[in-house]
Amino acid sequence: MSADPVVPETRVLAIASHVSYGYVGNKMATAVMQLLGCDVAALNTVHFSNHTGYRQFKGTRATADEITTIYEGMRQSNLTDFDVMLSGYAPSAAAVEAVGAIGMDLQRKAEKNPGSFFWVLDPVMGDQGRLYVNDDVVPAYKKVIHHADLILPNQFEAEVLSGVKITSLSTLAEAISAIHKTYNVPHVIITSVQLSDLTTNLSTASPTTLTVIGSTTRSDGSPRLFRVDVPALDCYFSGTGDMFAALTVARLREAVFAASPTLRTTRSWVSPDDVAATDLPLAQSTVKVLASMHNVLEKTMEARNAELAAAPAVLDDEALAQVDAQKRLHLRQTKAAEVRLVRNARFLREPTVEFQPQEWKKEDLPR
Amino acid sequence: MSADPVVPETRVLAIASHVSYGYVGNKMATAVMQLLGCDVAALNTVHFSNHTGYRQFKGTRATADEITTIYEGMRQSNLTDFDVMLSGYAPSAAAVEAVGAIGMDLQRKAEKNPGSFFWVLDPVMGDQGRLYVNDDVVPAYKKVIHHADLILPNQFEAEVLSGVKITSLSTLAEAISAIHKTYNVPHVIITSVQLSDLTTNLSTASPTTLTVIGSTTRSDGSPRLFRVDVPALDCYFSGTGDMFAALTVARLREAVFAASPTLRTTRSWVSPDDVAATDLPLAQSTVKVLASMHNVLEKTMEARNAELAAAPAVLDDEALAQVDAQKRLHLRQTKAAEVRLVRNARFLREPTVEFQPQEWKKEDLPR
Repeated sequence: MSADPVVPETRVLAIASHVSYGYVGNKMATAVMQLLGCDVAALNTVHFSNHTGYRQFKGTRATADEITTIYEGMRQSNLTDFDVMLSGYAPSAAAVEAVGAIGMDLQRKAEKNPGSFFWVLDPVMGDQGRLYVNDDVVPAYKKVIHHADLILPNQFEAEVLSGVKITSLSTLAEAISAIHKTYNVPHVIITSVQLSDLTTNLSTASPTTLTVIGSTTRSDGSPRLFRVDVPALDCYFSGTGDMFAALTVARLREAVFAASPTLRTTRSWVSPDDVAATDLPLAQSTVKVLASMHNVLEKTMEARNAELAAAPAVLDDEALAQVDAQKRLHLRQTKAAEVRLVRNARFLREPTVEFQPQEWKKEDLPR
Repeated sequence: MSADPVVPETRVLAIASHVSYGYVGNKMATAVMQLLGCDVAALNTVHFSNHTGYRQFKGTRATADEITTIYEGMRQSNLTDFDVMLSGYAPSAAAVEAVGAIGMDLQRKAEKNPGSFFWVLDPVMGDQGRLYVNDDVVPAYKKVIHHADLILPNQFEAEVLSGVKITSLSTLAEAISAIHKTYNVPHVIITSVQLSDLTTNLSTASPTTLTVIGSTTRSDGSPRLFRVDVPALDCYFSGTGDMFAALTVARLREAVFAASPTLRTTRSWVSPDDVAATDLPLAQSTVKVLASMHNVLEKTMEARNAELAAAPAVLDDEALAQVDAQKRLHLRQTKAAEVRLVRNARFLREPTVEFQPQEWKKEDLPR
């Protein structure tokens, strides 16, 4: 395994949350991209002690003004020559607008050089049928997404953005078509599809399979759909969406550089219409991303199980010792499930499993 | 070159400044330690757009309360099982005290397990004969340093802490002895010794040599001095102190684990008196640290020179285009000298040059 950079030289502006302990948000994304060889400018939208899955945390949120000011600081010193922007969690509608304005400023500067800037937007709004941001964040995202090159909603966020309730593979395809059309966004990946709702329509997938669906638009605006099935792991990990996004930044750029030399100077890196769905850089990237994630999360689960099987640490801290047993167990389980990122960096670089993208035509689907 | 972790499992709490763009403070330290395989909890003391060497930046400083609160957040969820703490820049005397209280809390928790926690403290106060912190930061550091295991002052900071004006190798040795005795701190490295003042006393070194001096105390409190000479590069880079500190965390832990099995369970990892200065884990670590730095900074200088030789980027930004030429040149030169860290990660892991530590006895020195 080589320690040489995996990706071509890539300068990323990453805007998301920072946690001191553990790996979510920008803490996850920055480390992942750096471990793959990207130079990352990290603009942090919150400064928390740990992720919210612990059900308790301390720290502060950046205001929209603070986010804008950091960007203005970089801009006044000519430090904004980014190839890619990755934007994730923003703590308010005003913060989403501030991040949107940054993306648009970078796009404006890159206008004369198509393909020289690419914006990956993770519209962090909610999950499992529930918003975890204020209601006014939704319309803020709906305005901003028009400018992104690739968005990475989960199933719930895709429903919110498309207005289509996803209950089957065909409604999933409708949701992706609607996102392409409504927001004119050329690339979409839906990063977590709950197969429990969908398995009746799938012969190959079981509830222990995770399916990721993506599409790069054709010139007529129609979707070019692919899917990748991977074995699901029986554990909940925080930060996997951020990990997916960060790996995608590196792997998509790698795939675009490996494709025809004209692609990287094509606006939004949209492949010609004759490129099959499974040959899309987005599909090629997604299989590598999922392979790395599968390896790292498998190692994480092993480490978690070992940690939970061992005797709990003695709590010398009086305050902690008084916390009730159920809460203590939740804290311990959450800590044990922190992604083992750094020690498994080799799997980010060279995953040991291989998945295959499948082309996926709407007309083939059961209704 | 392997991508496997270099160091044994190491959980670090890193407290220092964050900059979005470029590599200084915690942005440098966190990336370096992660690239070597450490798990890093990053508690950021400032949130700036870029480092102050640009002579302009925007952002906010954390208050002492905000620093304490983040730590309390980790503590309440039992997330403070750190092996090492690395503390760097704190923006006020109150912030230095807050960081000190965190170090002492972690030490208290580790009391029953000698060697299970180690505190590396970089007393960031000034350089080149000049303080760049408020005057009240100095007495704050003087109180806190008593609790550190290793401190990494530069020459000026060593003068401030020891009260000894360093004008020769013998006064340098006096300063280190005074630091051991006054603060009871077992390990010291003076990270930048200006040879222009000292070359008259050195036969082997020239003004193009950088000398690093370190010492681990003996049981009688006397210093056990070593020095490492490395070729100096003709360029000023920001963040090299932070890079040195972060590499030292990883390499010292590696060297301590490679030494006798009892050392890692010895308080402050102080080697027995019969270990020669050049065989100290601190000396072994320092030569690897300096080799990595030499490789990475050499690559940085090549990249900087190429960048400055190329035509300047067209400034499409009206505000920037109006900045006077001298300031624009300074910004460009400063950006070009940003450490090329991520693309040269292989040299952090496996440096290609070798330096040797030399034992250095005070009685051998010219007076």
